[in-house]
This record gives sequence, structure tokens and C-alpha cells, in this order.
Amino acid sequence: MLVCFLLLQPYAEWEAAYLASALTGFGHQVRTASLRRAPVRSMGGFTLLPDCGLEDIPDRPEGLILVGGQSWRSGGAKLVEPLVRRAFDRGAVVAAICDAAGFLGTIGLLNQRRHTCNDLADLKRWAGERYMGETLFLPRQAVRDGTLVTANGTAALEFALETLLALDAAPEGDIRAWYQFHKLGAVPPPGP
Amino acid sequence: MLVCFLLLQPYAEWEAAYLASALTGFGHQVRTASLRRAPVRSMGGFTLLPDCGLEDIPDRPEGLILVGGQSWRSGGAKLVEPLVRRAFDRGAVVAAICDAAGFLGTIGLLNQRRHTCNDLADLKRWAGERYMGETLFLPRQAVRDGTLVTANGTAALEFALETLLALDAAPEGDIRAWYQFHKLGAVPPPGP
Repeated sequence: MLVCFLLLQPYAEWEAAYLASALTGFGHQVRTASLRRAPVRSMGGFTLLPDCGLEDIPDRPEGLILVGGQSWRSGGAKLVEPLVRRAFDRGAVVAAICDAAGFLGTIGLLNQRRHTCNDLADLKRWAGERYMGETLFLPRQAVRDGTLVTANGTAALEFALETLLALDAAPEGDIRAWYQFHKLGAVPPPGP
Repeated sequence: MLVCFLLLQPYAEWEAAYLASALTGFGHQVRTASLRRAPVRSMGGFTLLPDCGLEDIPDRPEGLILVGGQSWRSGGAKLVEPLVRRAFDRGAVVAAICDAAGFLGTIGLLNQRRHTCNDLADLKRWAGERYMGETLFLPRQAVRDGTLVTANGTAALEFALETLLALDAAPEGDIRAWYQFHKLGAVPPPGP
């Protein structure tokens, strides 16, 4: 299966790292995309060379991952709206974390599915009347509703878990074992 | 402060992501380096464009981070040994995770400091008689002993915590609060 990660500069690398490596670990293909096929910086100062720009993005990936960062409120984000909407409408898994989850609210994709985001009050201010999904908001690390996955920015592992399940990327037991291994750690630290 | 991340293809992006973004978040500079200044793939299929190769790596970074991956048992890893040894000898923070921690054992740097790694039995087989530190091995997610930090590959957050503390990258309370925020999550999931 092919999964495409959409990254705007600067992107939050910790939000993408677990999911991308789990996908390849389970035998799937990962492609990175940005507005153009030109280097993109992460928030931590890593420079990504995306596999493609918006004009040559794979036609029908099984999953489209919107990685958080500090540009989802910019004009650049507007350019990806048609792509995201097409993926959603044709039933691909669309998974968005942190400000990218809020972005989905600004284009009306959180009005009919259960979802979460970083901060509900902020989303309501940001999206205005395009967001009418408040009764479907859940205060959780990550929420999966069919093909839509959303998460807050501290939920890299839960975002990966729910997205892997939405994609049916491996047997459910294998996915949950992978999550627990990383969540608890090989040597769980003593409690607080 | 300048911190240099050393990455061999393919590198484990989840092991670097939290630490790099926390460092820049606390106002420090991050540089990425590989054997050459040429694209390097991550295990999850992201392509990194390193800031420098071994020949133009910053002269005296305050920290040298060895990110795990699947090439620390290859000939390429041998090329970084002088660099790692120089950083260690001059008292820079040297932090290594997953197979990169084991690599430190193969060059004799785990014989006088408390440390951990993925698997002690594997390290003993791999390093042979160059590793004489078994009495200093601790079965923990991450171990900090002065300027040396080691961690297993499921310990991305604990590795970041101990490395930030070793670097004195911010007031200790701020570092621990950052760790707890990501470890527990903004909305901690219900227990098992």
C-alpha cells in the first residue's frame, strides 16, 4: 500500500516519525510531498527532500497524512485543500495531527465525523462558521472515525496507532503490540 | 549552543525527532551530518539532506548525537569513530541510542561509564573483548553518566530527556515538564 505524507515548512517531525517507520516496517510504501519538490525544514532543523510536489503527487494513495507544523494557517495550506478533499471524498484514509487537524476543520471535514484537535476553543476561533462539528469533538489523544483520523500534537504514538488501524496496515494484534512496545518502552521507567 | 546529529542510512527517525525539536524549541542550533553531504534515507522512507558530511562537520559542537539505524555495524560506521572519540575526549556530550549505543561499546567508550543499550547479550557478542563494561550496564530506558547518554530504541523520549539534562539545554524543571507533556500526552489515554 502507498501512503503519502504531506509536509509544510516547518513541519513537526515527531508527529510523523513513528507512523512512517511503522508503515515501512509493516511492508508499505511511504512517499513525502510538499508544495514543491524542494527542501523543507522540520521544526527541529532537519532538511527533508520531498519525493514530490503537489503537481506530481501520487494519484491515489491509500492514505494521506497531514503532519502538523507551523504553516497550516498560511496561504500555502490553502493550496492543498483540493488534494485533501479529493482524497477524503474517494474514501482514502485522511489522517491529520496538531494544527493539520485544525486545518481539516477550516475546510469543513470535521462536521460529520468524530474528531479531536489540539484545542477546541482555538479551532472554533480559527475556523469560524466553517466548523460546525463541536458535538462530534472528543477530548482524546487521537480519534478514528472510519477513514478519518485526528490527533493532538502530543499524540504521535496514538496518531500512528489509529492511522495504522484505519489503513488496516497489519493484523490488529501486531499493530497494538507495536504501539505498546513504544508506549511503555522495552524497560518501562518507574512511575512518578 | 550547537548540537550535531550524526545519521547513517537508514536512520531511525523516531529516535531523533523529539530531541531535535526540543533543542530548537529551547533556542539551540541543530546541524545534521552524515558520511557525505548527500541525501540519506530514514527507515520510514523520508529523505534527509544533511547539512554537512564528515569533512565539514562543525568543529566543536557542544553535543554529538548518534542516531540509531541499520548501519552501525557496517564499514561506514568505522569512519565516524575518530570524530566520536574526539568529541568524547574533549568533554562534549555524546549521546547514542539503539544500535548507535552498541557502537560506542565496540569502540571502548562504555567501559568506564554507566550505560544501557538495546540488548546486553547482543552487545557482548558484537563488541567482543573491546567491551568490558558489563558491571556498568543498567537495564533502563536511558542512562546518563556525566557527558555520556545511552538509550534503547524504544526510549526516544527518555533519550531526549537525559540528553537535554546532560547538555543543560534549559532549566531542569522546563526539561522535565516538556518530557511529561509528551510522555503522558495532553489527554492521557485510559490505562490498560
